[in-house]
Amino acid sequence: MAHNVAQKLIASHLLSGEMKPGSEIGLRIDQTLTQDATGTLVMLELEALGLDRARTEVSVQYVDHNLLQSDSKNAEDHDFLRSACQRFGLWFSKAGNGVSHPTHMQRFGIPGKTMVGSDSHTPAAGSLGMLAIGVGGIEVALAIAGEPLYIKMPKIWGVKLTGQLPAWTSAKDVILEMLRRHGVKGGVNRIVEYYGPGLATLTAMDRHVIANMGAELGATTTVFPADDQVRLFLRAEQREDDYTELLADEDAGYDVDEEIDLSTIVPLIALPSSPGSVVPVREVAGRPVEQVVIGSSANPGLRDFAIVAAIVKGRQTHAGVSFDVNPSSRQILQDMTRMGATLDLIGAGARLHQSGCMGCIGMGQAPANGSISLRTMPRNFPGRSGTDEDSVYLCSPETAAAAALTGTITDPRDLQELFDLEYPSLELPATSSVNLAMLEGPLPPEESAQVELVKGENISSLPVFGPLADHIEAPVALKVGDDISTDGILPAGAKVLPYRSNIPKLAEFTFAQIDETYPARAAETREANGHIIVAGANYGQGSSREHAAITPRFLGLRAVLAVSYARIHWQNLANFGVLAIEFADAADHDRIQQGDVLMLTGIREALVAGTAITVHNKTRDEDYVARHGLSTRQVDMVLAGGLIPWLRDRQTRETGAQD
Amino acid sequence: MAHNVAQKLIASHLLSGEMKPGSEIGLRIDQTLTQDATGTLVMLELEALGLDRARTEVSVQYVDHNLLQSDSKNAEDHDFLRSACQRFGLWFSKAGNGVSHPTHMQRFGIPGKTMVGSDSHTPAAGSLGMLAIGVGGIEVALAIAGEPLYIKMPKIWGVKLTGQLPAWTSAKDVILEMLRRHGVKGGVNRIVEYYGPGLATLTAMDRHVIANMGAELGATTTVFPADDQVRLFLRAEQREDDYTELLADEDAGYDVDEEIDLSTIVPLIALPSSPGSVVPVREVAGRPVEQVVIGSSANPGLRDFAIVAAIVKGRQTHAGVSFDVNPSSRQILQDMTRMGATLDLIGAGARLHQSGCMGCIGMGQAPANGSISLRTMPRNFPGRSGTDEDSVYLCSPETAAAAALTGTITDPRDLQELFDLEYPSLELPATSSVNLAMLEGPLPPEESAQVELVKGENISSLPVFGPLADHIEAPVALKVGDDISTDGILPAGAKVLPYRSNIPKLAEFTFAQIDETYPARAAETREANGHIIVAGANYGQGSSREHAAITPRFLGLRAVLAVSYARIHWQNLANFGVLAIEFADAADHDRIQQGDVLMLTGIREALVAGTAITVHNKTRDEDYVARHGLSTRQVDMVLAGGLIPWLRDRQTRETGAQD
Repeated sequence: MAHNVAQKLIASHLLSGEMKPGSEIGLRIDQTLTQDATGTLVMLELEALGLDRARTEVSVQYVDHNLLQSDSKNAEDHDFLRSACQRFGLWFSKAGNGVSHPTHMQRFGIPGKTMVGSDSHTPAAGSLGMLAIGVGGIEVALAIAGEPLYIKMPKIWGVKLTGQLPAWTSAKDVILEMLRRHGVKGGVNRIVEYYGPGLATLTAMDRHVIANMGAELGATTTVFPADDQVRLFLRAEQREDDYTELLADEDAGYDVDEEIDLSTIVPLIALPSSPGSVVPVREVAGRPVEQVVIGSSANPGLRDFAIVAAIVKGRQTHAGVSFDVNPSSRQILQDMTRMGATLDLIGAGARLHQSGCMGCIGMGQAPANGSISLRTMPRNFPGRSGTDEDSVYLCSPETAAAAALTGTITDPRDLQELFDLEYPSLELPATSSVNLAMLEGPLPPEESAQVELVKGENISSLPVFGPLADHIEAPVALKVGDDISTDGILPAGAKVLPYRSNIPKLAEFTFAQIDETYPARAAETREANGHIIVAGANYGQGSSREHAAITPRFLGLRAVLAVSYARIHWQNLANFGVLAIEFADAADHDRIQQGDVLMLTGIREALVAGTAITVHNKTRDEDYVARHGLSTRQVDMVLAGGLIPWLRDRQTRETGAQD
Repeated sequence: MAHNVAQKLIASHLLSGEMKPGSEIGLRIDQTLTQDATGTLVMLELEALGLDRARTEVSVQYVDHNLLQSDSKNAEDHDFLRSACQRFGLWFSKAGNGVSHPTHMQRFGIPGKTMVGSDSHTPAAGSLGMLAIGVGGIEVALAIAGEPLYIKMPKIWGVKLTGQLPAWTSAKDVILEMLRRHGVKGGVNRIVEYYGPGLATLTAMDRHVIANMGAELGATTTVFPADDQVRLFLRAEQREDDYTELLADEDAGYDVDEEIDLSTIVPLIALPSSPGSVVPVREVAGRPVEQVVIGSSANPGLRDFAIVAAIVKGRQTHAGVSFDVNPSSRQILQDMTRMGATLDLIGAGARLHQSGCMGCIGMGQAPANGSISLRTMPRNFPGRSGTDEDSVYLCSPETAAAAALTGTITDPRDLQELFDLEYPSLELPATSSVNLAMLEGPLPPEESAQVELVKGENISSLPVFGPLADHIEAPVALKVGDDISTDGILPAGAKVLPYRSNIPKLAEFTFAQIDETYPARAAETREANGHIIVAGANYGQGSSREHAAITPRFLGLRAVLAVSYARIHWQNLANFGVLAIEFADAADHDRIQQGDVLMLTGIREALVAGTAITVHNKTRDEDYVARHGLSTRQVDMVLAGGLIPWLRDRQTRETGAQD
């Protein structure tokens, strides 16, 4: 049967299930990527799993998020991550080496491989013909431990590219066009696959831009074929041996079809405060701009900086604009510097920042309230910049450069007349600056085994949770309504995030925005029989952060009884051994009050048999019927107390069998 | 009469008083320098004074401190400062243009001129034959308004330099040698003047290093002659027309004499946590290092980066070291990049940060607790790095480079053997990269008058303080020992500095590192009779920040009773109406305990008469004798409640007289 690229990648890694949209499939994972904001927890999970050594082909821990180091916590996390890499046989990319996605692509990306990463922009590696998926930290930990990734088979969305991009537009405008057409939910449960004659004009790094920001479409991932552009890229990285051609079969089809004629693309811009609110730049031209930021994983390539440098070269950026340049990696900064682009940017008045994510994840560069900031970044959700009333627009490097020169939102095509400027033709070096100055390889196994984890005072081990009880009799410590988000369960932000590696401390912020008395009340149940949370519909919507399952569990949460769940949080609860069940009758939600004592009996038998669970309300002497949606594999996991104890039990059994 | 350089500078600007050590003199001020951490307050003071336009020859507002922008506050302060520069006719140096001291020297420094700056390292301009003094913000505001600067005529300390620095040592080792000999109080009430045959081998930027860190000796300022090295410097800056020779008369003498034979200098290092704890690098060699930071106003020149680049070129810095590079200015980064030094640093694994003060004032770059950080910066007071238990050493660029390569404290002379490395001979460009891309000149007066100040939500007006009471009966809310720095009184860093324009909020951080219970205790006294602080010797050393006087005053501080004061902080206390008096007998310091109630009576009369003040300890029924060192003018000011009420009173009187 003829296969497209996505199907080939899946078929070659399929361990269980069928490639039928909606079916659960298990995939062998070749590579993993973690960044520091999520990686500390992944390393603690590896410790909890008792992992001896990574079983993937390549696993890399990057430090690119928490680079500002306003106090000792970040530096201590970096030390911890380094020691964990040494202990478990991972690569370590030091603070300052760069953003994970372009760095991984340049140094480790290999066509035909699979990857999971604890960062939502992991799909960027699809630019090289990889199947790369962003997942929760524990799933990365399991992948590192050699476990399959389980997902529901997505639909494959074929996007045929024809024609060629006009002057003053670039890859960013292509993905903005996709977002203009389909919005931020258009890609849910889909893999986007680009193909067609237009592809030949897009370099691998152009494709990175498009694959990266496929995350904003809500897509599972984005893939491109591995073709001559990929070969050229790997040759420039001195890794041509890693090249394998990976093309769709000639008569392959797609579940969904789309076409973009590149020659019709115009400069586009996403308005505040969603990457899906895309309009032509012309529609908003003239608005005054106070900040222009280039860089991030959405426009990370040498070309993206070089085109801006060529536009501003010999000119001075507008006096009222802070023109911020975030090199995406040490290597790209080295290339920029080698070809003279760095000098042109500095000469024009750029603020050159350290290599990393920086303002893209609100790590500095917060603009003034109400002022317009233009960024080549992938996201502009409200407040993400660090400023409460921010006004962040997303655009291409060309559009950013135009605003830096004029101080207003400007269609870059107008630069021709305004500055008598032809669209620059770039001559990029054929070979990248490759060196491993900030990249440490895995230690040999015998040395690894000797390494002690270096834990600063803010890094605590992952709490160990026991198996699910057959009988739960516990109070409802919290009752909430519909649409509670993971931000409501555990807020992000500069006050809370520094404690990401310290579950006991982090737990103090659980439900801070909804009921700040919850942590104390919950903690009281911890040494006794724990507690239950009762919730309405769509419980746990929003960000995928697994901390929102871990901290309530740490505080004694045993079961959640909800009208319905958001998919990822439901999975996270199961991963950490919390029984997440649904009311058979949604109206029962109203009959329970906070403080009621609920009794669940015969839980284990009901889970295995797949039958309903009866919930007895002791306080009111009422019964409710509840259901679970767990697969056999998931039932085993919840019974064991979560993914970590489940895996440990299995390892013990396997070791026993060998004896 | 034969004059030395310092005397010539003073004589040519003397408006009142006699050049007799200890006498108060009034000086005409030609230039001012403000940075953003202190400048917002200066601009609010200009507004409070009702100034129409700056009356100095040159006044420049730099943005170099608060560059991280974790929320909207910093960007809004930058907007405010820009609008204030436009309103009052000042130059504005944008965020990213660089550290005030080297930038001012390169673009505005002129031999023979006087300058005040609201930054304690302002004396760096002494490298060009200027008389440049660090003062509190309010004194800069007055200078901008055309008022004289009043100081006590210091002693002139002649330091004769002979010989020539050996390989692997540089200017930093010269000032470290001065600190080794004399400690952080050695220069109090002195102007250090360097002269002698050894001078010819020190460039103007080398002299900047020495003059800058003269602040750490406690000196009023440091001066160098304007000689051929200064001419060369100004020529490179395309400003040779600004050169005037300024040499000491041949038979000029000094109040105090010192000699340094440069050929005997060895690599030196200041141990944690004082710039005065200086030892030879050899004594502490071998200690493991986790962070090396180069840059800051203490080693700002192109040469200081180029020598490091030449040492690490083609090598890789140690895997366990974060090698942080803070270019001191956009112009110097441009020069570094032009000559290839930037490329060499990046290639060796540097984290290249934005141009500015950065880690020097705890704006990021905080190391892990207990880990050693080597810095080419001027200060290492405890906690200044942002890390509670920091361990910061101060050294030359050569010593920093050695540690970056080896991962341990290393005498750079050992590099010869370790890496088969001759001391690099540098070829620096004869001409600097001069452009005004990030520097805005003053608006024409007619345009200035139309400008409205742009005040973000975090910029509050200055609190108004009342006149000094004749009788103070108040508790000792805090007792501290010797050498309390202004960092100790009011910390800098990313958490605190954003509130520098918001006194009520800022006050909550007063003495945060020394006794975090102080603000609450002090605030309780605020509505009653206020409180007193008892301190040891050298109270208020370090940074010039006047916030360290304002926030305790805001919390109810009425008087400080200390063994002795650092000059700038003593002046700041007087400027904001706090009675700052000294024990006649230093031993009395030990007899007072925190919580004791002290009674001072007949204060106003004693101040006017210049007699001693008796301090009665009601708790212990003891009396102590205290003195004040205030001039008649200062007595008037303190009695009025500080400089602003005093000046307002004067304006009212003058206006009344005209009626």
